[in-house]
Amino acid sequence: MRVLGVDPGLTRCGVGVVEGVAGRPLAMLAVGVVRTPADAELGHRLVAIEQGIEEWLDRHRPEVVAVERVFSQHNVSTVMGTAQASAVAMLCAARRGIPVALHTPSEVKAAVTGSGRADKAQVGAMVTRLLRLSAPPKPADAADALALAICHIWRAPAQNRLQQAVAQHALHASKGRPS
Amino acid sequence: MRVLGVDPGLTRCGVGVVEGVAGRPLAMLAVGVVRTPADAELGHRLVAIEQGIEEWLDRHRPEVVAVERVFSQHNVSTVMGTAQASAVAMLCAARRGIPVALHTPSEVKAAVTGSGRADKAQVGAMVTRLLRLSAPPKPADAADALALAICHIWRAPAQNRLQQAVAQHALHASKGRPS
Repeated sequence: MRVLGVDPGLTRCGVGVVEGVAGRPLAMLAVGVVRTPADAELGHRLVAIEQGIEEWLDRHRPEVVAVERVFSQHNVSTVMGTAQASAVAMLCAARRGIPVALHTPSEVKAAVTGSGRADKAQVGAMVTRLLRLSAPPKPADAADALALAICHIWRAPAQNRLQQAVAQHALHASKGRPS
Repeated sequence: MRVLGVDPGLTRCGVGVVEGVAGRPLAMLAVGVVRTPADAELGHRLVAIEQGIEEWLDRHRPEVVAVERVFSQHNVSTVMGTAQASAVAMLCAARRGIPVALHTPSEVKAAVTGSGRADKAQVGAMVTRLLRLSAPPKPADAADALALAICHIWRAPAQNRLQQAVAQHALHASKGRPS
């Protein structure tokens, strides 16, 4: 499975592509950051993010795009920009028919470090180890994007089993319903 | 000046087109709502909003798109969806080179009713009167979109003068700077 992880942000949008399946060593295909100038108009920044994400989708053809789920209670000063950047990333993926998966920051931290309250340094260290890199990816947004992709690859089997169970249940329920 | 007002939302995105200049009677050209199903995936809802906004831009060719400025302190449960829908509207406009203007809810209320704390009914009543409609536009999101467009037409002259003054000041400052 090839996953593009996106750590959304207006100033720095982390992007990282990881390939692999749960239980096997993972491979990093690419990592980077889509940047937009803080003094540009908001509409133009969103267009720049769209162009950046489109380039990553064109170049790496991921099967899934994993985006950080944004909550309104955290980092009030930047949360609106984060929500807007994430909307653009989800739009680009959905427009191409690529499934979008959302994972919370604590799900991502728990997946790669074992603790939902791990700090940035710990996440960076584990991403470096899991992808057998020579140094932690910089900036932290880039490492976080890789962590999102890893989290998705490892969580996907469980999520798929859950979705199949729900679908099965719905199927049986509809068969049992009087017509 | 022809303005498309957008009251952003995932479930109902109000849209309204108003034509006019400050100090003259205004004309409503169209009003409506772009809806997306609450049970659809977020990415698909954003794609549906993009298609809806694109249709409104194609049909009415506004010179400006006025969007409600979203704040993170209000309506915590819906604010993320509002921010994401507004991002799509801004993206669609900016991609075409159409200027995007943001106005706060209190600026809009103050512009059309004289009070920044007016309620929905008051805004609806004034929009009905100012555009000489036979009844308040329904739902409230549609009326709010028209109020945004009216607000922009009335505030634009002052904003333009301010921008010109800032630009003049920057020009003089840069001329006075040692090279």
